[in-house]
Amino acid sequence: MDKQNRRKFLKQSFHAGVAGVGGATLLHRCGTEKQPDSEEIPKINVGIRDTFLVSSKDALPITATFLDEISHDIPHQNWGEAEWDLDFRYMKKMGINTVILIRSGYRKFITYPSEYLLSQGCYKPTIDLLDMFLRLADKYNMFFYFGLYDSGTYWDTGDLYKEVAQNKYVVDEVWSKYGVKHKSFAGWYISGEISRKTKGSIRAFRDLGGMCKSISDGLPTFISPWIDGKKAVMAASAGLSKSDAISVRQHEEDWSEIFDGVRGVIDACAFQDGHIDYNELDAFFTVNKQLADRYGISCWTNAETFDRDMPIKFMPIKFDKLRLKLEAAKRANYEKAITFEFSHFMSPQSAYRQAAHLYDRYMQFFNR
Amino acid sequence: MDKQNRRKFLKQSFHAGVAGVGGATLLHRCGTEKQPDSEEIPKINVGIRDTFLVSSKDALPITATFLDEISHDIPHQNWGEAEWDLDFRYMKKMGINTVILIRSGYRKFITYPSEYLLSQGCYKPTIDLLDMFLRLADKYNMFFYFGLYDSGTYWDTGDLYKEVAQNKYVVDEVWSKYGVKHKSFAGWYISGEISRKTKGSIRAFRDLGGMCKSISDGLPTFISPWIDGKKAVMAASAGLSKSDAISVRQHEEDWSEIFDGVRGVIDACAFQDGHIDYNELDAFFTVNKQLADRYGISCWTNAETFDRDMPIKFMPIKFDKLRLKLEAAKRANYEKAITFEFSHFMSPQSAYRQAAHLYDRYMQFFNR
Amino acid sequence: MDKQNRRKFLKQSFHAGVAGVGGATLLHRCGTEKQPDSEEIPKINVGIRDTFLVSSKDALPITATFLDEISHDIPHQNWGEAEWDLDFRYMKKMGINTVILIRSGYRKFITYPSEYLLSQGCYKPTIDLLDMFLRLADKYNMFFYFGLYDSGTYWDTGDLYKEVAQNKYVVDEVWSKYGVKHKSFAGWYISGEISRKTKGSIRAFRDLGGMCKSISDGLPTFISPWIDGKKAVMAASAGLSKSDAISVRQHEEDWSEIFDGVRGVIDACAFQDGHIDYNELDAFFTVNKQLADRYGISCWTNAETFDRDMPIKFMPIKFDKLRLKLEAAKRANYEKAITFEFSHFMSPQSAYRQAAHLYDRYMQFFNR
Repeated sequence: MDKQNRRKFLKQSFHAGVAGVGGATLLHRCGTEKQPDSEEIPKINVGIRDTFLVSSKDALPITATFLDEISHDIPHQNWGEAEWDLDFRYMKKMGINTVILIRSGYRKFITYPSEYLLSQGCYKPTIDLLDMFLRLADKYNMFFYFGLYDSGTYWDTGDLYKEVAQNKYVVDEVWSKYGVKHKSFAGWYISGEISRKTKGSIRAFRDLGGMCKSISDGLPTFISPWIDGKKAVMAASAGLSKSDAISVRQHEEDWSEIFDGVRGVIDACAFQDGHIDYNELDAFFTVNKQLADRYGISCWTNAETFDRDMPIKFMPIKFDKLRLKLEAAKRANYEKAITFEFSHFMSPQSAYRQAAHLYDRYMQFFNR
Repeated sequence: MDKQNRRKFLKQSFHAGVAGVGGATLLHRCGTEKQPDSEEIPKINVGIRDTFLVSSKDALPITATFLDEISHDIPHQNWGEAEWDLDFRYMKKMGINTVILIRSGYRKFITYPSEYLLSQGCYKPTIDLLDMFLRLADKYNMFFYFGLYDSGTYWDTGDLYKEVAQNKYVVDEVWSKYGVKHKSFAGWYISGEISRKTKGSIRAFRDLGGMCKSISDGLPTFISPWIDGKKAVMAASAGLSKSDAISVRQHEEDWSEIFDGVRGVIDACAFQDGHIDYNELDAFFTVNKQLADRYGISCWTNAETFDRDMPIKFMPIKFDKLRLKLEAAKRANYEKAITFEFSHFMSPQSAYRQAAHLYDRYMQFFNR
Repeated sequence: MDKQNRRKFLKQSFHAGVAGVGGATLLHRCGTEKQPDSEEIPKINVGIRDTFLVSSKDALPITATFLDEISHDIPHQNWGEAEWDLDFRYMKKMGINTVILIRSGYRKFITYPSEYLLSQGCYKPTIDLLDMFLRLADKYNMFFYFGLYDSGTYWDTGDLYKEVAQNKYVVDEVWSKYGVKHKSFAGWYISGEISRKTKGSIRAFRDLGGMCKSISDGLPTFISPWIDGKKAVMAASAGLSKSDAISVRQHEEDWSEIFDGVRGVIDACAFQDGHIDYNELDAFFTVNKQLADRYGISCWTNAETFDRDMPIKFMPIKFDKLRLKLEAAKRANYEKAITFEFSHFMSPQSAYRQAAHLYDRYMQFFNR
């Protein structure tokens, strides 16, 4: 069918409301493809390949994930050990070699039957998650990082010192009962999610980091703060952005002061990458790397795999957005990409099926 | 590998960004376990068992569920009878013997082709849900409770009397056309979700309860109000809590007055358990039981299986939270646990897969 | 068991908290059905049929869907071509013959490697979605409509003229590189979602429509605005409704002016149907049809398949609500029903399983 007749046909077809055999037949004569049998819906055609316009060599792969226990704001998937075991296998297949328990407890909910925390009124957990994660990390040859206890006091009062006091007991207890028994126990995650506004608590971070290193003969520690950018709004709020976002200059001043205060006891910093716009990634990442180098801190990125741009807080991220962030991390010569967080937002087992497809896109992109 | 060498290895490995064969091989030499074949992702290993730190004998099992038709605020799953039939089977397997139609209509949406409500301008439903639920309840030997019609007037004006007037017709109609024909029709759910603030409508509740009993020769009635606690915020709002939460004393005063006003026509009260903090459960539950005993009302708990602590309103609850609430109900000698609500928040068929896993954890915990 | 004994039994059973063999046996004697074996949970019984109270001949079927790329506010499903290929087959099976790319780009995210938009600072997409959608539309004999680029300027400043300037380049580029090469390329979607408040931009719409027609030798164009009704609230906000909703009269005045201004360059208008209450459908639809007829514009409905009444923004719509809207469209003699949007809200592949069941209910209802 030549172009002129096609144009005419299309204009006429515009008013053909309902799909019918007639319309389909006429279109069929325009080409030579066999019309698919729309009566039968076969399985998905796994032979169909996507053609990429970009190369994965420009992106930093993800090699670590948080385990979101005890969660602040992500609905629980209610997995048992069978699901976790399979998820560790999926993680490994993706190239992940490190898992980080994000916080061993939050307020009265704890991940393991801590004698100390139970004595403080915390609720008894149904199972010992810490034991389970360590056994799985041992089994799958992962590095395991232990996240400190979050009493909630900081969120209520701004005071980080209660965290120090309570975590002294937690760290002692966990090291002797779990740390010395598992080959995967590789370090500590200082879970207070500080930002520029908590500079006054630099001392608390020194204490926490020093405490962890001291008991474990110097195992590594890291932090994962957020940048006070335009998307730094509360999860339990409707809005997606704010107007008083930080400038790169102010961010640099604040973090120079914080890094200077924690050097030597904090080994790495993985800034959450989701609070700034995509066109701000290079500017902030460059500064982060300079600061990290200046103060002898490893520069990691926390490549968030959930989407901060959507009304639902939160669903898995669009693959293209993740790709942009991993490319920026690569350009800035970041050392490592960790993510919040595989099991909800990238796992083939996730309750959010968008996560299973994100895993597929990632594996395809990185040729795994 | 001895501890000292392990420590050294772990610190060196800290800077190994990407997972590679080298790192994995080195770890492998540390232990004797066979390294899993990460190339193949087999099915989930159903042989893996969870070890519980707590006993189910301290928890009250759930034996009833609401059927959330017509829903106020939970997105519809769009099931047909095949899905509902299977869900009744899952319910039964879990130990549920009672289903409660939460409200036979809400504003202009109705569950059955009520001549009366259609004459009032309600929309014709696609299928007769009431008929379907009663047939399924008959088939699976369940007790069925019928929830009254909610015209929406109370939510708009605070006036419960329109509900009384309209429900007189509804109750007459439903009893003669459905109630007398189904062996499962076992009672009535007075669906107005009253709280302390609706004390002025005690008379309306007496009328509604009395009306239901009168036509059905005294079949049981129950209510399921909420406690005006810190989490009593609107679903269509962003926040998760409020500051002006009720004290236990005020709650006791208010409900003593309400129970005194409805005794004899309301047989049971199942307070929704999700609006108070977990550490407030014993205090409120104890008072609820005392009041119920004092006024001859059966004390049930509505063990909510959705999570009120998360930004998304609502996803299935974390199993540990449900467990805490069922344990509190057991301690307070509650007679029965019902739930809002199985099909969205605990069913293996739920669109929210966290619900399927909640079902697994529950079944495992109660050894079913 | 006679009625009197049944009544007595039911009252006694009221206090039977836990499901037990005793209760079940007693009920069993009341009837003759074989008690289902609750120990075994077989597959869903596909032989169970639903009985409809309404006829599909009173409803207008859906024959077109948007493809929500680049999305404003729906979380990405992260599909690859295999998933999209299967979804086109599901669409066809449902009777869809038209797909509409909703907007070829939004701010810096684009659907195809546009030389022009990349030169304006847009991000490189991972794959060429426009190419993929056109190949699939060719393969499945669909009509494809191309949605214009949305720079975001209108949302930030209210000015639609930047859209005109940028889209001149986009339209030229897309026509020559894609339009002339694909038999499915059938028209244009003017993606600015205007409402009564944007009357001042009538000129911009004339320019955009004229531009598209001019380059493509008059291929059809359409718009899909919203009615400024009670549910016209922002997606990234908690509320579900507003008080200052438009009256039918004001809506008619505003749209008479807009239609008068765009006649001749806009061929169809598909008002989004979800911002007004169900009892307002006939009033607004009647006016829409009159206006459309008066100005020579085809009257379509955008039958939204997501639910605007629920706290989560957004989940798939309840089938009964969709049915009411399609019936209103049929009553008003609308020519065509399109939907926002199949892949998230009606597809068997959707991450939201309520969508798969909505598809089942729809197919069952329309006997497909």
